[in-house]
Amino acid sequence: MAMPIGRLRWAIAEGYIPEWSTGPKPEFTSHETACMLNASDQEAHVSITIFFSDREPIGPYLINLPPRRTVHLRFNELRDPIVPRGKDYSSVIESDVPIVVQHTRLDSRQNANAVLTTIAFAADQ
Amino acid sequence: MAMPIGRLRWAIAEGYIPEWSTGPKPEFTSHETACMLNASDQEAHVSITIFFSDREPIGPYLINLPPRRTVHLRFNELRDPIVPRGKDYSSVIESDVPIVVQHTRLDSRQNANAVLTTIAFAADQ
Amino acid sequence: MAMPIGRLRWAIAEGYIPEWSTGPKPEFTSHETACMLNASDQEAHVSITIFFSDREPIGPYLINLPPRRTVHLRFNELRDPIVPRGKDYSSVIESDVPIVVQHTRLDSRQNANAVLTTIAFAADQ
Amino acid sequence: MAMPIGRLRWAIAEGYIPEWSTGPKPEFTSHETACMLNASDQEAHVSITIFFSDREPIGPYLINLPPRRTVHLRFNELRDPIVPRGKDYSSVIESDVPIVVQHTRLDSRQNANAVLTTIAFAADQ
Repeated sequence: MAMPIGRLRWAIAEGYIPEWSTGPKPEFTSHETACMLNASDQEAHVSITIFFSDREPIGPYLINLPPRRTVHLRFNELRDPIVPRGKDYSSVIESDVPIVVQHTRLDSRQNANAVLTTIAFAADQ
Repeated sequence: MAMPIGRLRWAIAEGYIPEWSTGPKPEFTSHETACMLNASDQEAHVSITIFFSDREPIGPYLINLPPRRTVHLRFNELRDPIVPRGKDYSSVIESDVPIVVQHTRLDSRQNANAVLTTIAFAADQ
Repeated sequence: MAMPIGRLRWAIAEGYIPEWSTGPKPEFTSHETACMLNASDQEAHVSITIFFSDREPIGPYLINLPPRRTVHLRFNELRDPIVPRGKDYSSVIESDVPIVVQHTRLDSRQNANAVLTTIAFAADQ
Repeated sequence: MAMPIGRLRWAIAEGYIPEWSTGPKPEFTSHETACMLNASDQEAHVSITIFFSDREPIGPYLINLPPRRTVHLRFNELRDPIVPRGKDYSSVIESDVPIVVQHTRLDSRQNANAVLTTIAFAADQ
């Protein structure tokens, strides 16, 4: 792709990992996802910071996005430290190569799963 | 964070607090939320104005967002006056420091909860 | 409000009015809504054009938005002509005063209602 | 329409076609859709590239959007090759005429269908 698509800095103001799930795993495990696309021909070095309502931010979590690849990152799977369940949070995602970020949640606490999505907020360069 | 992320003026055109709920409280109380992230190092002074279809706007409601914190504000919890249930409304959110705003609703009027979200409309500076 | 918020031209690429509904009316009637906020101090004259996959566009439908008011317009309620049910469509919304537009659907064809929302696409001025 | 609305390059970072469905077909077949609006008076030549987490991109898929028409394209229906089910993907959509793109998914794996939508990410021109 001649011209990369995306921005360097993104924010997701909504964040909440439900505390429980129903249905077969892992498809129906309640989760919160940052879908990140690196459509460029260079590896992207991504850092994620998590903000809370009542404590200092944690992170940055460092993730490499290979060229021409997407990573659908579940916040559930972040480690050292883990993201607490049942707590409000927000995230800021920064990259050294333009990427596109979309936020999705599957909430399977009830028999019928619920889903939501939005393109994240893209900061001006 | 060296460079704050966000904008000073935001709008959410959709607004509706369902009149009833099912399921355990408070997680499954029907609610409408403005998730606000202040990733900067300064306190943000936020004012929220609520618009209706058939009467003059109410507010502004004044909220302080501490530095490096997120507030997931439920419109249900605004007081003096409260936001009426079962009525269409819109909101405009203004801050003196750049913030990011995302709109979410949990509708639990039926056995299966439904959720929706979108990044709010960010005005140009 | 000193400075109006919004844009003059908006588009919603998704459009689909489900053909049936379940649950109490009118809250649970399946519907597709354009939530429009006029936060300015002037009346907005809005025109809506509906595009299809297999025929020429219809409209424009003309709607007045009073100053400092929101209108949550259900596409179901447009008349002369009505918007056909069970058909894919898109819409373009144009105003002479800056407004904010958000798209929402309630789909109640099944026992559990489903909802979706997004801020519409705002054209550059 | 005097002035076309939209952009030339769009991205959807989220993509996932559920592996099964419940309910009457085709309305309730689980699907992932790119709703594309060409409000201009010229045919748009659109090319779609699909990105994965673990292999090189596929495409471009070539689609013509007639003037003043919308196409709600189901990724399920792309052929040569098909888009694999149950796999994370992202898409980039490029056009030679300004278009508007919105992403929608119907997930009917459970008795209650779930829906999500967002306007796609619009690249600056």
